Amino acid sequence: MYSLCVRDHTMIAHSLRGEVFGPAQRLHGATYVVDLEFRRPELDQDNLVVDIGLASQALRAVLATFDYRNLDKHPDLRGQNTTTEFMARQVFDAVAARIAAGELGESALGISSMRVKVQESHLAWAAYDAELPV
Amino acid sequence: MYSLCVRDHTMIAHSLRGEVFGPAQRLHGATYVVDLEFRRPELDQDNLVVDIGLASQALRAVLATFDYRNLDKHPDLRGQNTTTEFMARQVFDAVAARIAAGELGESALGISSMRVKVQESHLAWAAYDAELPV
Amino acid sequence: MYSLCVRDHTMIAHSLRGEVFGPAQRLHGATYVVDLEFRRPELDQDNLVVDIGLASQALRAVLATFDYRNLDKHPDLRGQNTTTEFMARQVFDAVAARIAAGELGESALGISSMRVKVQESHLAWAAYDAELPV
Amino acid sequence: MYSLCVRDHTMIAHSLRGEVFGPAQRLHGATYVVDLEFRRPELDQDNLVVDIGLASQALRAVLATFDYRNLDKHPDLRGQNTTTEFMARQVFDAVAARIAAGELGESALGISSMRVKVQESHLAWAAYDAELPV
Amino acid sequence: MYSLCVRDHTMIAHSLRGEVFGPAQRLHGATYVVDLEFRRPELDQDNLVVDIGLASQALRAVLATFDYRNLDKHPDLRGQNTTTEFMARQVFDAVAARIAAGELGESALGISSMRVKVQESHLAWAAYDAELPV
Amino acid sequence: MYSLCVRDHTMIAHSLRGEVFGPAQRLHGATYVVDLEFRRPELDQDNLVVDIGLASQALRAVLATFDYRNLDKHPDLRGQNTTTEFMARQVFDAVAARIAAGELGESALGISSMRVKVQESHLAWAAYDAELPV
Repeated sequence: MYSLCVRDHTMIAHSLRGEVFGPAQRLHGATYVVDLEFRRPELDQDNLVVDIGLASQALRAVLATFDYRNLDKHPDLRGQNTTTEFMARQVFDAVAARIAAGELGESALGISSMRVKVQESHLAWAAYDAELPV
Repeated sequence: MYSLCVRDHTMIAHSLRGEVFGPAQRLHGATYVVDLEFRRPELDQDNLVVDIGLASQALRAVLATFDYRNLDKHPDLRGQNTTTEFMARQVFDAVAARIAAGELGESALGISSMRVKVQESHLAWAAYDAELPV
Repeated sequence: MYSLCVRDHTMIAHSLRGEVFGPAQRLHGATYVVDLEFRRPELDQDNLVVDIGLASQALRAVLATFDYRNLDKHPDLRGQNTTTEFMARQVFDAVAARIAAGELGESALGISSMRVKVQESHLAWAAYDAELPV
Repeated sequence: MYSLCVRDHTMIAHSLRGEVFGPAQRLHGATYVVDLEFRRPELDQDNLVVDIGLASQALRAVLATFDYRNLDKHPDLRGQNTTTEFMARQVFDAVAARIAAGELGESALGISSMRVKVQESHLAWAAYDAELPV
Repeated sequence: MYSLCVRDHTMIAHSLRGEVFGPAQRLHGATYVVDLEFRRPELDQDNLVVDIGLASQALRAVLATFDYRNLDKHPDLRGQNTTTEFMARQVFDAVAARIAAGELGESALGISSMRVKVQESHLAWAAYDAELPV
Repeated sequence: MYSLCVRDHTMIAHSLRGEVFGPAQRLHGATYVVDLEFRRPELDQDNLVVDIGLASQALRAVLATFDYRNLDKHPDLRGQNTTTEFMARQVFDAVAARIAAGELGESALGISSMRVKVQESHLAWAAYDAELPV
């Protein structure tokens, strides 16, 4: 299995609901450094997993919907606890939709799985890893 | 699959037995920077893989049994070559026992697998990755 | 000149006022990974720059005043643009006050300068570096 | 599953053919920081995945064939687009051949899979991950 | 003294002339990860060292003159050994010229010194650090 | 001022004497990742701060005197508290002696200062920074 991974980041505010979150129930924020990994069993005819330029643009476009936002008021996230692991899934689904829409090029339809890793500090990260529908 | 990972470290002395270890047969030591990753197929009702506070406490409690110790004289490790990969397994088993004992909360029983990565320098690391008993 | 540096972090929300900040005028947040470096020309009688335990406690205590807070509503920061460089100075002043108050031990009075580095992402950091009053 | 990973690097020149590569069609270069991970289900009798000294030597020997070279003129790579993902595979195959030849020791025949990760910048990496023939 | 630092990178080919360079006399290449640090004794009225957006654009514009190039044929670098320390100086001078030309804003004229750090691998970096003309 | 920095590491055992060290009074150990920075105001005729090959060899030779050793029994360190800051100074003095002895080449006599940074974990490092005698 081959992988290609690109990195970008976003800076957001949010709060979390539930006693389990302790002081993180207060309005605070985070820098999320996001690693987006694409996988496929064989390279395309250019020896690529995916066009790295289109991959970076797609990640940027997805993170732009969160940049400098309060996630508590984000129309797509209302009523959700926007934990780091939940946000990894949001990025995954948004990139997967862009692949399906052909925005990463025709060759990107050969991508079989992805992993989104979201680092919230030097001590903690979360990830979502899944196959893509054929 | 979702992941949540926390980092901590411990500083130990030890020696290794066998010609394969060359100068590492002498008494020396290491800083082990430990990444403990929990995985599960679905998030719990709080959108969490595991309570990150309890996870960090569990890792700290496990590493505390090694902190500032000579592993050659550690009662649980006698007669073992305490290689980095072996130590990754020790951490895994100790955390797994804490999960089974309910110390990471009831929701943590939904964790399906873990990976313990132990970095011994900027050039080398070892890991142990396995499923948890249901 | 000798240095000793300890790392910790805090997660905050804030907004910035002024056209120069563009979208960062909106309420958002950041993870600040903070490196606190102490310097002195000679080591103390224990061969230390500072007691690393007390140093880490002091940094934790200072960052605790910001943890999971909206800096826009922080009583000590009202009316200020809480840029990363400004926050580096806040941490510096708060640690300096603790040294002067003896909280880092008598030997810490020998510290001659400090540097506070605040990393806001994998692409940007700010710092404040200054001498301490004798 | 146990892992042991060692790191090394190589610095090369190359160019890439095809419109998809944009300005990277020009002759340029890269530092490749390479992480070579070995995996096996059980440790050997020394509690090792692999002799780390032999593992590091093997990685060095493989990367030495690329060090300070223009890959466009490398006899083994003619006519290939030497993308980062393709180079990960080259390193994998060369290390696998050395294991099969017994250069990493008899115990290394117990290695079941490997992963080669090649970091080309702070923003991008590629990898190749596969099982070894029994 | 306050600092603000931004990071970017460039990928180049080059060769070095002189026996001291050994195999690096051959045509090869490097990824240069560049940290550009601006310093000033007091913040401006927005609590900034420099507009981080303009700073990042300036660094990008300077590195774009090297991106995907063979430095041996770069018109501004003919006859020079383009070592990492030499390249740090090139970036410094080019950014300094942009500050003097007002491209980083009027407030940037208050910047008193800069440091350019160029990382060529996980094992080596070079830097150039100097005051700016008043 | 120009800088050139090389990285290497060593793994040691030691204990520390004095109540201030708490549990670190027990025999334990550390991985020290060492960054050795050389500085000079002008480059030599090859556009170098120092021959990077000789610099790396010198650092390796100095660290080899500590590799896989118990510092409590090291003949040069008896009776000393081998704190991280103290060890930074030991490395500095040993490299300075090698420069003075001509082991880093004639051009290296132009080096005006050095900084030795010793990282003991992801949370703490120490350094020693000083001018070299002319």
